[in-house]
Amino acid sequence: MSKTINVAMIGARFMGKAHSNAYLNVGKFFDLELQPVMKSVCARDAAGTQAFADQWGWERADTDWREVVAAGDIDLVDVCTPGDTHAPIAIAAAEAGKHVFCEKPLANTLEDARTMLAAVRKAGVRHMVNFNYRRCPAVSLARQMVEAGEIGEVRQWRATYLQDWLVDADSPYSWRMDKKIAGSGAHGDLNAHAIDLARFITGDEIAQVVGDMKTFVTERPYADGSGSGVGASGAAGKGGMGKVTVDDASIFLARFASGAIGTFEATRMAPGRKNYNRFEVSGSRGTLVWNFEDMNVLEYYSKDDPSNRQGFKRIMATEADHPYVAAWWPPGHVLGYEHGFVHGVYDLLQAIANGTEVAPDFRDGAQCVAVLEAVEKSVTAGSWQTVETVE
Amino acid sequence: MSKTINVAMIGARFMGKAHSNAYLNVGKFFDLELQPVMKSVCARDAAGTQAFADQWGWERADTDWREVVAAGDIDLVDVCTPGDTHAPIAIAAAEAGKHVFCEKPLANTLEDARTMLAAVRKAGVRHMVNFNYRRCPAVSLARQMVEAGEIGEVRQWRATYLQDWLVDADSPYSWRMDKKIAGSGAHGDLNAHAIDLARFITGDEIAQVVGDMKTFVTERPYADGSGSGVGASGAAGKGGMGKVTVDDASIFLARFASGAIGTFEATRMAPGRKNYNRFEVSGSRGTLVWNFEDMNVLEYYSKDDPSNRQGFKRIMATEADHPYVAAWWPPGHVLGYEHGFVHGVYDLLQAIANGTEVAPDFRDGAQCVAVLEAVEKSVTAGSWQTVETVE
Amino acid sequence: MSKTINVAMIGARFMGKAHSNAYLNVGKFFDLELQPVMKSVCARDAAGTQAFADQWGWERADTDWREVVAAGDIDLVDVCTPGDTHAPIAIAAAEAGKHVFCEKPLANTLEDARTMLAAVRKAGVRHMVNFNYRRCPAVSLARQMVEAGEIGEVRQWRATYLQDWLVDADSPYSWRMDKKIAGSGAHGDLNAHAIDLARFITGDEIAQVVGDMKTFVTERPYADGSGSGVGASGAAGKGGMGKVTVDDASIFLARFASGAIGTFEATRMAPGRKNYNRFEVSGSRGTLVWNFEDMNVLEYYSKDDPSNRQGFKRIMATEADHPYVAAWWPPGHVLGYEHGFVHGVYDLLQAIANGTEVAPDFRDGAQCVAVLEAVEKSVTAGSWQTVETVE
Amino acid sequence: MSKTINVAMIGARFMGKAHSNAYLNVGKFFDLELQPVMKSVCARDAAGTQAFADQWGWERADTDWREVVAAGDIDLVDVCTPGDTHAPIAIAAAEAGKHVFCEKPLANTLEDARTMLAAVRKAGVRHMVNFNYRRCPAVSLARQMVEAGEIGEVRQWRATYLQDWLVDADSPYSWRMDKKIAGSGAHGDLNAHAIDLARFITGDEIAQVVGDMKTFVTERPYADGSGSGVGASGAAGKGGMGKVTVDDASIFLARFASGAIGTFEATRMAPGRKNYNRFEVSGSRGTLVWNFEDMNVLEYYSKDDPSNRQGFKRIMATEADHPYVAAWWPPGHVLGYEHGFVHGVYDLLQAIANGTEVAPDFRDGAQCVAVLEAVEKSVTAGSWQTVETVE
Repeated sequence: MSKTINVAMIGARFMGKAHSNAYLNVGKFFDLELQPVMKSVCARDAAGTQAFADQWGWERADTDWREVVAAGDIDLVDVCTPGDTHAPIAIAAAEAGKHVFCEKPLANTLEDARTMLAAVRKAGVRHMVNFNYRRCPAVSLARQMVEAGEIGEVRQWRATYLQDWLVDADSPYSWRMDKKIAGSGAHGDLNAHAIDLARFITGDEIAQVVGDMKTFVTERPYADGSGSGVGASGAAGKGGMGKVTVDDASIFLARFASGAIGTFEATRMAPGRKNYNRFEVSGSRGTLVWNFEDMNVLEYYSKDDPSNRQGFKRIMATEADHPYVAAWWPPGHVLGYEHGFVHGVYDLLQAIANGTEVAPDFRDGAQCVAVLEAVEKSVTAGSWQTVETVE
Repeated sequence: MSKTINVAMIGARFMGKAHSNAYLNVGKFFDLELQPVMKSVCARDAAGTQAFADQWGWERADTDWREVVAAGDIDLVDVCTPGDTHAPIAIAAAEAGKHVFCEKPLANTLEDARTMLAAVRKAGVRHMVNFNYRRCPAVSLARQMVEAGEIGEVRQWRATYLQDWLVDADSPYSWRMDKKIAGSGAHGDLNAHAIDLARFITGDEIAQVVGDMKTFVTERPYADGSGSGVGASGAAGKGGMGKVTVDDASIFLARFASGAIGTFEATRMAPGRKNYNRFEVSGSRGTLVWNFEDMNVLEYYSKDDPSNRQGFKRIMATEADHPYVAAWWPPGHVLGYEHGFVHGVYDLLQAIANGTEVAPDFRDGAQCVAVLEAVEKSVTAGSWQTVETVE
Repeated sequence: MSKTINVAMIGARFMGKAHSNAYLNVGKFFDLELQPVMKSVCARDAAGTQAFADQWGWERADTDWREVVAAGDIDLVDVCTPGDTHAPIAIAAAEAGKHVFCEKPLANTLEDARTMLAAVRKAGVRHMVNFNYRRCPAVSLARQMVEAGEIGEVRQWRATYLQDWLVDADSPYSWRMDKKIAGSGAHGDLNAHAIDLARFITGDEIAQVVGDMKTFVTERPYADGSGSGVGASGAAGKGGMGKVTVDDASIFLARFASGAIGTFEATRMAPGRKNYNRFEVSGSRGTLVWNFEDMNVLEYYSKDDPSNRQGFKRIMATEADHPYVAAWWPPGHVLGYEHGFVHGVYDLLQAIANGTEVAPDFRDGAQCVAVLEAVEKSVTAGSWQTVETVE
Repeated sequence: MSKTINVAMIGARFMGKAHSNAYLNVGKFFDLELQPVMKSVCARDAAGTQAFADQWGWERADTDWREVVAAGDIDLVDVCTPGDTHAPIAIAAAEAGKHVFCEKPLANTLEDARTMLAAVRKAGVRHMVNFNYRRCPAVSLARQMVEAGEIGEVRQWRATYLQDWLVDADSPYSWRMDKKIAGSGAHGDLNAHAIDLARFITGDEIAQVVGDMKTFVTERPYADGSGSGVGASGAAGKGGMGKVTVDDASIFLARFASGAIGTFEATRMAPGRKNYNRFEVSGSRGTLVWNFEDMNVLEYYSKDDPSNRQGFKRIMATEADHPYVAAWWPPGHVLGYEHGFVHGVYDLLQAIANGTEVAPDFRDGAQCVAVLEAVEKSVTAGSWQTVETVE
């Protein structure tokens, strides 16, 4: 009989739903050494949290995260709140000796991120940041291929993470447009993913950056509370207009430590791009392309093919010998968005069970924040900035 | 507090897994009037079935389907077995007054299908066939669009359902190659889906057919039991070769009642096509194209656009106002294979709760078998055959 | 100094333009042993033909093809007229000792095609049918790959040649809808190409067929003479409606001599498909896909790649080591529709210069007509028909 | 009878071939008021130039461009040489009262470009820069759509012009890697096109830039003279290694005058990208995407479609009512690389005939050089630079 681990999740909106789904299903498809027990979900709205707990099968609904992270029956704290509360929750959890699973970006400031990293290290607990796209099978495969030298030496990275949910000037205001809560806009929400994918796939670090950040729509109406989705807000019913204090789009150039160069773009203003998280990485022998909107496919060009047989190959990463796939369905029976979360929880639980490392951890999360922060500095300075290294 | 409905599932392989996932998750994403209780899973192998029940949370593991369908605490019987046992199980379930959810094809013969239909009608129970592809959101959308006249009068249907798992002559033998159990090969397995989609999307009936069926590899080695996936077999360890008595590929031409014409192909021998279930339907004003391998997208061409602005539009059916999508994730956060099963179970449970019709029902299932059987007759006769109408 | 060959072209509409372009440009891009001299263009309308000759640089404009094919200074007769006049012109040309280049389909009846073949053989002249798609570089490459065994043993062929220029019921009547002139509709116009590509790529023969042909719009208004394009007609200004005596769509199943099977569709009624001449051929080791609308690309799937590196590769056939490409532009500088005609003329001129065979010749053209005719018989008979073999 | 204009072309390599083709064919497909007479082709290698003249039908082969531009029978001078000689040739031609058609980039320095512009203005001759991609029909259509407001207010531009012909470290050295001749590498060769397309499509100006330029392979072997294509060199047979003094890749961020932002990348080091000249432009109501490798297609997303019918529409710009297309073939009969050159020559000849403006002219060319030069300054300075305005 397998052992169990008690989970408390702080936050019960979009990410809370995605994480709940992962805890519910991970043990059905994967063989686990530690079965997660959905012990407590915690959010400020008591009634809503109870309803959420009932729907998803969390044993209890709580409203005070400080009590929850300190509770004796909790082993793992999952932080699904907006960025401004990641640090206090994660640090408290670590200090209470709990493993910590945290949404991205790790923190709204590099200082917070460094403090969080120090806390989990001091506590000796397991820590992980949920950069879920690493664990789409096609992305995991891409990493394996780069590591195996299948595109040669990496030279150029192109990241475009495009969404369009803020194109309309009357799309409602939410906490995601409030710099105090969200830290930034497309920058921290989307470029955080893009930066993490660049670090993950290349195994390289971004050393210098220069960028620009732009807000096209500077104020938005408060929501009426009927909304749903990415930006669903607690600001419903206020009436009037909210001041947008974050970027709608963020673009930057990067120089990697190895000498490779890159371009990055994140935006919420690209009509027709819904969750177009795409990278194209070129090396001296080949190229890999991935786009979340067609997430089961990895495109691969190899100069090692015969000269008149070269072309971009659409590898449908749904074979049993692709990462994570054997647990699911036969070839071609495609996976969706939530599967990456299941894979992340699987790897985290196995790492906790076996006392092994798991990535991306808080150091990865902090290094990502260092890049984000350097880009913001470059916008102010109008010049290239060196990225701080998080040891 | 919502009411519950007790489910028994017969069969615990590929489809058993997909159905279990649906029962487990449907109430998490959709508001249900009847919550399914996963009461009993039943299959011949006692130990394997118990393990399956433990993994998925079925309350008990049974081995005798006759006892299960007769059990007093079962309300809904879900038939996930090979085609040769659909009829006895479904009929017994109906006679015991249980609602019946049955995998496709409904039966291996039209005679069996008619008997099943008569049984459920006589019993007055709810009945549904699991043509899961109807409920991929992009497919449901396609039906709405055709019904609304958005492609005009339907003229031509093209179905290609291509897989490649039997290309290698040494791919192992399984029950799916045994005509006594499976009824046919690609024909009943894949063309059944293609026929159902044609009927669903067009709202029309196939009136005449002529076809060909081909077996390229006539015998295959028995599996060593290590296999998995679509064709995983109980024939492991026998050694020697099994005689393939079903088709590897089935192609046919169709004349619809309306005067439309169509081409159909199903094969398990198309290298690179994994679950390429594709249709392209042309009408007098437009065209729709869908392919399961890119299941979130519906392509649409409309002659009603201005002449120099016409083109195939890739509608990513992941918006909240697309069928079923609001229950899941924000736009562009794509769905996968299993979601169609969840949608089917959702609609079935709602229909049972409300005493309303649900499609595709056993009449649809039987009409599909009538087409399959007419194609088989045409192969023998070498000429066009009229499809029987199931009233 | 290179030698020359005097060309007379009969017909000066769509094909006349495409052939003129080929004669004008072939010597600019390719090294020729015989330079074509554009001697005479011949069509019934004297003024229009003179204008055509002036524009394209034909030395003289003629109106009587009998005089032209007999003229002492003509070496090669190029037949670009509708199908009903191919036989008399080509036979007269052969009897006059002229080489013959003929548009497809070779003839409207197999009987005519056989007579034409006998005539060119008796005369000992060079003969070629202009199945231009064979010489798109990606198609020529596909043939090389099948011949080299790169998809293994061919098992399944899928051809869909879709256009949409007759979708509207008020698209004007033209000679292409008149069975006496055109022989058939989409069948002879488009399926002729599809059949030729199947024969070319597979190196196999179609042995048996069963099909259906359908006319969705049975009468059409006469054109006002302002039209252009594929169906531009001499029937302008008549007023009233013309009776459509040919098919709008033609579909058939095929059994190849080797045991392979195939599906074929040609239609002019598929909204959004402009010149969608596509084939997908599966073998025991791989698959090839080509579509004229993306004519520079050949898709290739190989089971010989490592199992988790397989995928459809988009080979852009624009490299110097792809067929015909070195004569044109650098890689990725894509070719268009007319280039296939230039390649055909190049190969024909080289064959004449060197006294070598060139394909597709009149035997190929006649065999294609044999398939077309067998399909038409199958529609009448309602059953499979055996295709006559042209020796 | 139409009037004629005598053309002299300086340079007879890749661009010389593309321009010759344009002069040869433009009058065959388009109705011209001025027929071009291919009078003189001029390059340094006498024998090679004579051969080129013979092949393409230029009346004479010259070797001294100063004599040619001064010759009394020349009306239009076409400059197809490397960038370092554009200024002297164009200025001399203007001073001799000749119209000037010049390859891009207009000059290697902004100073030269300004001088050229002053010269043609002073002479009152017609002047045009050959940014050929403007006249791919899908690109011309994109401009019409942006101008008509079909994507709303332009907000973001993304340009990626990727090639791969220098990926291999042993690809031979050519003049294109010599800064003295070529001015720069991918930057001036490819980003010049990208900048021009951004200016053309948006109707906006790039106001500020910051960039990076990178040389991955710093020396290359001299060619053996057998090469062909983009970089074919006169440096054959030297032996030894040539020092690469230009960039392999150039990336930059841009701020437009309107407030829009953009990212630009040009590289010759992207395996698998052959002539991947792509832009994606987002506005407040829609998005347009174009890529030369699929040059006949323009992708268009409009937020003005009903919310659940939105999607990227693939407009195949091959209809008679798309720019330039009526002159060519029926719908779907795709065009290729050289057609853009024919369209440019057509528009230039018509402008000369009618005394009207034609774009892009030397002011456009100079403004493009201003952007290129500002990017180069930003690389040195490590900070954003303001782009000079050319009046």
